[in-house]
Amino acid sequence: MRNAIGREVIDNPFAGAFARQRFNRQVNTKQVEPVVMHGIENAVKAVKLEDGMTISFHHHLRNGDFVLDMTMRQILAAGMKDLKVAASSIFPAHKILVDCIDQGVVTSIDTAYISGPVAEAVSAGRLKGDIRILTHGGRARAILEGECPIDVAFIAAPAVDRSGQISGVLGNAACGSLGYAVADAWRAKTVVAVTDNLVESDLLAPDIEAGTVDIICVVDKIGDAAGIVSGTTRVTKDPVGLKIAKDATDIIVHSGLFQNGFSFQTGAGGVSLAVAEYVRDHMRRAGIVGAFGCGGITSAFTGMLEEGLFHQLFDVQAFDLAAVESSGKQQNHHRISASYYANPNEEGHVASRLDVVVLGASEIDLDFNVNVTTGSNGALLGGSGGHADTAAGAKISLIVSKLVNARVSCIHEKVTTVTTPGETVDVLVTDRGVAVNPKRKDLEERLSSVAGVEIVSIDTLFERALALTGQPATIELSGDVIGRSVYRDGTELDKIYRI
Amino acid sequence: MRNAIGREVIDNPFAGAFARQRFNRQVNTKQVEPVVMHGIENAVKAVKLEDGMTISFHHHLRNGDFVLDMTMRQILAAGMKDLKVAASSIFPAHKILVDCIDQGVVTSIDTAYISGPVAEAVSAGRLKGDIRILTHGGRARAILEGECPIDVAFIAAPAVDRSGQISGVLGNAACGSLGYAVADAWRAKTVVAVTDNLVESDLLAPDIEAGTVDIICVVDKIGDAAGIVSGTTRVTKDPVGLKIAKDATDIIVHSGLFQNGFSFQTGAGGVSLAVAEYVRDHMRRAGIVGAFGCGGITSAFTGMLEEGLFHQLFDVQAFDLAAVESSGKQQNHHRISASYYANPNEEGHVASRLDVVVLGASEIDLDFNVNVTTGSNGALLGGSGGHADTAAGAKISLIVSKLVNARVSCIHEKVTTVTTPGETVDVLVTDRGVAVNPKRKDLEERLSSVAGVEIVSIDTLFERALALTGQPATIELSGDVIGRSVYRDGTELDKIYRI
Repeated sequence: MRNAIGREVIDNPFAGAFARQRFNRQVNTKQVEPVVMHGIENAVKAVKLEDGMTISFHHHLRNGDFVLDMTMRQILAAGMKDLKVAASSIFPAHKILVDCIDQGVVTSIDTAYISGPVAEAVSAGRLKGDIRILTHGGRARAILEGECPIDVAFIAAPAVDRSGQISGVLGNAACGSLGYAVADAWRAKTVVAVTDNLVESDLLAPDIEAGTVDIICVVDKIGDAAGIVSGTTRVTKDPVGLKIAKDATDIIVHSGLFQNGFSFQTGAGGVSLAVAEYVRDHMRRAGIVGAFGCGGITSAFTGMLEEGLFHQLFDVQAFDLAAVESSGKQQNHHRISASYYANPNEEGHVASRLDVVVLGASEIDLDFNVNVTTGSNGALLGGSGGHADTAAGAKISLIVSKLVNARVSCIHEKVTTVTTPGETVDVLVTDRGVAVNPKRKDLEERLSSVAGVEIVSIDTLFERALALTGQPATIELSGDVIGRSVYRDGTELDKIYRI
Repeated sequence: MRNAIGREVIDNPFAGAFARQRFNRQVNTKQVEPVVMHGIENAVKAVKLEDGMTISFHHHLRNGDFVLDMTMRQILAAGMKDLKVAASSIFPAHKILVDCIDQGVVTSIDTAYISGPVAEAVSAGRLKGDIRILTHGGRARAILEGECPIDVAFIAAPAVDRSGQISGVLGNAACGSLGYAVADAWRAKTVVAVTDNLVESDLLAPDIEAGTVDIICVVDKIGDAAGIVSGTTRVTKDPVGLKIAKDATDIIVHSGLFQNGFSFQTGAGGVSLAVAEYVRDHMRRAGIVGAFGCGGITSAFTGMLEEGLFHQLFDVQAFDLAAVESSGKQQNHHRISASYYANPNEEGHVASRLDVVVLGASEIDLDFNVNVTTGSNGALLGGSGGHADTAAGAKISLIVSKLVNARVSCIHEKVTTVTTPGETVDVLVTDRGVAVNPKRKDLEERLSSVAGVEIVSIDTLFERALALTGQPATIELSGDVIGRSVYRDGTELDKIYRI
């Protein structure tokens, strides 16, 4: 047979250099130096927004972010219509979006997490179009694969040099890794770096390399340091939480994965931090050195790196000041992109190499499906973030939760909204027993001999909860669909309803 | 509609957490600490080879490698049959393979480069099965995607710790980056780290992380330092070569890409090194700081990193001692995997972010197809290495070559073997004129005004060559197919014939 360049071949003919490529080939590298301008109003004018466009923001400044607010105020004043906002997360500080929603300026939203007034407005059905709750890795995938094309990315930039390199570890609004903004920088048609810190010397080891930024927009202040990271994160002191953490740790230590080369992620919640401290202690005593810790990084993990308990940290987001500082100075503390962290189509992404992840849950059901997106009445109060990504990637995913909290069971017959499919959830650790996903018979067998950890079926745990709470009232969701819970691969897990 | 977890969704139903995954999910992480054994004969026994299996090797020790030789001697003595050897490159030091081929021990070969006695034996038709000449990026892709499954990888390891972490920058056989061995370590069913340097402390920043190695095999000596890297690489002194280098440099400088954020790769040949030195000088004078240099790394590039002319180096292979040393100590000199370097299916791989690459050619044809795999008689004398990968990835690929060398034209009507499709080749720079691929009218226009660079059609260059050489005798290739030239995406570019 003959191939696309006319040569005889045996089989599988060459079809053109880019015919079989799975990704868009190139970063949208810009051919000119970025333009420097002052004042967000000038940048918003310069990017020539049109009705119906998609604009994006990242959330590394968290609830201290000024950039989304100042940008949307200009856009609101300009009277645009039907914009889509692709923000990696939405916090109370972003409440300007409520006005934008009510005036039809913003009519659809893609995000991995949403809380506060904007969540309330969306749950009330005030957004004209759809909200899609993505995962952190899925958002990067969708942007990079062209599924979520971005017209203009407004990137809050703690430091920028004149070539458009951006660093998250310098300046008054230093926030550490800018991992969630990398895909936006690579793919947005127009990229605006909004900064209060334009530096004249070239930045070394930037989060975002040169060649992506069109406009450097200098403003007075991109964020409020107090809202960006918490000074410290705290281990729980609640004895019930500590008991859950201790059992989770025993399970990890006896999982067969606890050995040199171990890799590990926990969140920044009080119970998760307690697990991190307990695991740290076990590593010290057993002389175990782990390959890496990853995820949102806290002082628990930077301490372990300094102590030599991990060879490397992969940091997509700093949760506290220790993480910001460490990521700016420790050679093996790597600030990474959301794609490298958790894009399911990126070969060798960090989450896929995880041994153990410890996660929370608002609800979990008898199929081990987890909800961290909505409350039991269907109201938006969070989102996947990296939940579904790491549950899928890790060899063992543990959910830690009180069985009954404020008279409500964490176990339900069916979760209100599926955030993370039960297929990827391995163990539920509660204060009243541990349930192992029936598809992990291997793990159940291995853990059955762990002293002090009682393994029961999830149905049994559910009965125990009902004995405490009584049969809960059935909550009828409205029939009005306002959005979708989207899995990391872009498929739909569930509908989200107006409340 | 209802999705795989029974939820009603709007469209695009979730089909299972791993149903749409494009890659194998996991590194084959091993659950136990590696076993340490002494002597290659014990390791070869322990891995339980069977007839028909695939074994792999990497070539970072180049012509100083002892590991392939010592391993294949044991296998030859054991009388195995029908093995496939997946070696990233094959050098004269690997001539034991000729005996293996003649005795039917090795019957097929996958490699990205082959020269010396093994190439001669294969070209003579002595290999029973097929040879496939891959690209460096394509080899990583094929291994990671399961297209080339490896039963046992024998990894020459300059330093290993007891958790199985491997570093290329320590020990008597230090060779720098081990980039070509990473996919093998991740995917081979059994991984043997062959080392003369088992260290007791944990290695920091290893090339291959813990969790992949099954057996650490300690031997006396894995290689001969003198053959591993050349002490220095030399810029050409030939005035014709220097004229080509100067013209190539002028083209780069006027390409529109020569600005802050510039990224660049050249090979280690004399003309390429001259281009690197000229470009370096232009960067200094223009005050340009590049984003990165990449590829096989030479002292030209480590010097530019130290001088601050590049922010980063991405190093898949050290070509000289300076590169080995720099990669062990400079923070922004990254040792990377072949997949991250050039796997076409790895999002954001380094080659895809290249501005300019300078490459050689044995033959180029009127469609700009390039041959670096065979001579004009069809005999194997090389292979793609990263040629096709970087030509496809870079915004501009330049081929530098004398128009006529030893009375033979570099331009042919049709190349003997297609290594790199003409679609991805932008400019041919010879001592007797420059030809721009007609599909790059934009570039031709831009370069037409560059003083001293004469742009003509490739047909004109071909006529100039024929005026010097006369009409070359037609070489008839034998009809016997012995192998395939395989593009980075796994499709076939061309057949390779017995001579």
